[in-house]
Amino acid sequence: MTQLNLCGDTFGVNYQLMGTEEQALKMASDICLEQTVEVPEELLQQRDIREQILGQVVALDPLGQDCYCAVIAFPVEVAGAELSQLLNVIYGNISLKPGIRVLSLDLPERLLKHYRGPRFGIDGLRQLLGVDQRPLLCTALKPMGLSPQELADLAYRFALGGIDLIKDDHGLADQVFCPFEQRIELCQQAVERANGQTGYRCLYLPNITGPAQQMHQRAVLAKQHGIQGALVAPGLVGFEAMRQLADDPTLALLLLAHPALLGCYTVDNTAGMSHGALYGQVNRLAGADAVIFPSFGGRFAFSQQQCRDLIHGSKREMQGIKAAFPVPAGGMEVHRVEELRGFYGDDAIFLVGGDLQRGDVTQRAAEFVQRVSTVRP
Amino acid sequence: MTQLNLCGDTFGVNYQLMGTEEQALKMASDICLEQTVEVPEELLQQRDIREQILGQVVALDPLGQDCYCAVIAFPVEVAGAELSQLLNVIYGNISLKPGIRVLSLDLPERLLKHYRGPRFGIDGLRQLLGVDQRPLLCTALKPMGLSPQELADLAYRFALGGIDLIKDDHGLADQVFCPFEQRIELCQQAVERANGQTGYRCLYLPNITGPAQQMHQRAVLAKQHGIQGALVAPGLVGFEAMRQLADDPTLALLLLAHPALLGCYTVDNTAGMSHGALYGQVNRLAGADAVIFPSFGGRFAFSQQQCRDLIHGSKREMQGIKAAFPVPAGGMEVHRVEELRGFYGDDAIFLVGGDLQRGDVTQRAAEFVQRVSTVRP
Repeated sequence: MTQLNLCGDTFGVNYQLMGTEEQALKMASDICLEQTVEVPEELLQQRDIREQILGQVVALDPLGQDCYCAVIAFPVEVAGAELSQLLNVIYGNISLKPGIRVLSLDLPERLLKHYRGPRFGIDGLRQLLGVDQRPLLCTALKPMGLSPQELADLAYRFALGGIDLIKDDHGLADQVFCPFEQRIELCQQAVERANGQTGYRCLYLPNITGPAQQMHQRAVLAKQHGIQGALVAPGLVGFEAMRQLADDPTLALLLLAHPALLGCYTVDNTAGMSHGALYGQVNRLAGADAVIFPSFGGRFAFSQQQCRDLIHGSKREMQGIKAAFPVPAGGMEVHRVEELRGFYGDDAIFLVGGDLQRGDVTQRAAEFVQRVSTVRP
Repeated sequence: MTQLNLCGDTFGVNYQLMGTEEQALKMASDICLEQTVEVPEELLQQRDIREQILGQVVALDPLGQDCYCAVIAFPVEVAGAELSQLLNVIYGNISLKPGIRVLSLDLPERLLKHYRGPRFGIDGLRQLLGVDQRPLLCTALKPMGLSPQELADLAYRFALGGIDLIKDDHGLADQVFCPFEQRIELCQQAVERANGQTGYRCLYLPNITGPAQQMHQRAVLAKQHGIQGALVAPGLVGFEAMRQLADDPTLALLLLAHPALLGCYTVDNTAGMSHGALYGQVNRLAGADAVIFPSFGGRFAFSQQQCRDLIHGSKREMQGIKAAFPVPAGGMEVHRVEELRGFYGDDAIFLVGGDLQRGDVTQRAAEFVQRVSTVRP
């Protein structure tokens, strides 16, 4: 007979459960089994498995009509030191059941010690850019179909205007019409040339999202070209893959996380994960220094409340895990800077894409910078 | 000015769009922009980008009340040779918008040539096991909390009963109470010992899901112990990570895909991806030889229609990409074998977990085998 001697420390997951109190209680105890031992309770013959491995319902409180919040505690050893297994315990099998949504994670130091989190975070990125207080400004190189040289010209003109961060559009991979290496070489040179003229420290962040091995090779290549950060879409390649890049000290990259393919987790308010848990907390565990998301008022559908939850998740205390910048995006426009700053405050990165291409790009960028440097919320 | 000279070949995605015909048409043209150039149409000055990069609405047909099917064609070069970018084009940004569901993928040879697909597939796995016609039988080592030796004993007793495939529970990672290497060594030995006695070729499939680098190391370790296949949860590590393992000729592993964390893609019938597209087609592109899913009638909520769609996706013609076994699971019980066989036919793997542990394990396993060897649909 095995002797489990677990430490007794647990991590907590807050779940929203849809149903009557009785149904919610049943769902909560199902989660305790499903996410750990995955057998019916009557088959658990060993007392120490029952006592030490199973999740435990710590609280069940009403959130609204037929809607409850259950706090469930899981032993830290069940998640081990792996993000993939932590995600599995939090929401693996039960992602397949309707009516269960992860609201937030409460992770103790004994679990968090396995995670580096964002390498730069809010303070580190400000230091890198030499910008103390105001919101940071970001734009994207697009449309897809432009050649590397055309994208580099665009980057040069954005950087001249004073943009802080210039990222590849997340659809730029390594296509025949825009090969990765050629693109990043030309774009980085263009941004360095502009920095030489302006005295700013604008950063070019190429999209390195791709097949596991290529992603690492692209990161190495970027580093060789003097590039200090990159764009990764964890929904396309897995949070573990992003975490591995973020943790690599030989790369020491600044990472901007893109939400592609993650929408299904947040689109239905009764299932999936909350904006704060997924885009905020999980992205930070996976090493994102900044988190792109479709802001309210753009061409996507996040509400103000969802955006607030996301901000909270990206900045809330997580013992030793740095805060990440929220990056509102998705159809943002220059004329909204005051409104955005009022809502998001100063510790945010405003990502304006297409709207900066309406007219002279350098002038539009300078206007964007001007507005954010003068307005006060 | 760039000169795009794309080949003109396209791949097709069938989307279900919720709304009136007018709304659906608008959604369809939005998808064409959003999934490629990601700028408003009026900013597309270059004619060749407009003509060669943009998605094109090929058809729009009613599926029901306020529900349409749009067929959209994208240039094969936009997806390049990368699964991450293919997924991005199919559903990256629009996963963030409500009312859009991917129904199926129509991929031409010029795109599929970049994909190996399942290494074994249905025929290859049958050959490996020496089982010609009947459905295959699979079980899981659990509950979590058992020691490696206890799991190995369980594996031995299952294998003696004639089970074809014995997989780790997907919650077994590399925890302190069940270290990976010790577990796979003991379990593999146990199954080999049983095979020596029975003459069968039962396979032990350890769960190698984990951080990117460790996953590869675990695969290598498994191989060194004579193990021929493994369990991977692509939702936890990314489809690209699974694809990389599947494609590695030095590993040449049989891969069983687990659906953990993928539920959000299919749980809402108006968003996400269909069961056939995700669990079937995408899993095959990523190299899965067999695909686990919660069958109708178990403790999860897939309907018969959804299961049928999944079967179709796992077996439908995809020029050169082998068919994968559907693996109905999630609370399956031995007494349902006849019913399951009637529904799934012979080219399926029935995964029964907890129910085989009700009583003497070897006897229960033998009964399971007996039932499937004698019943005819």
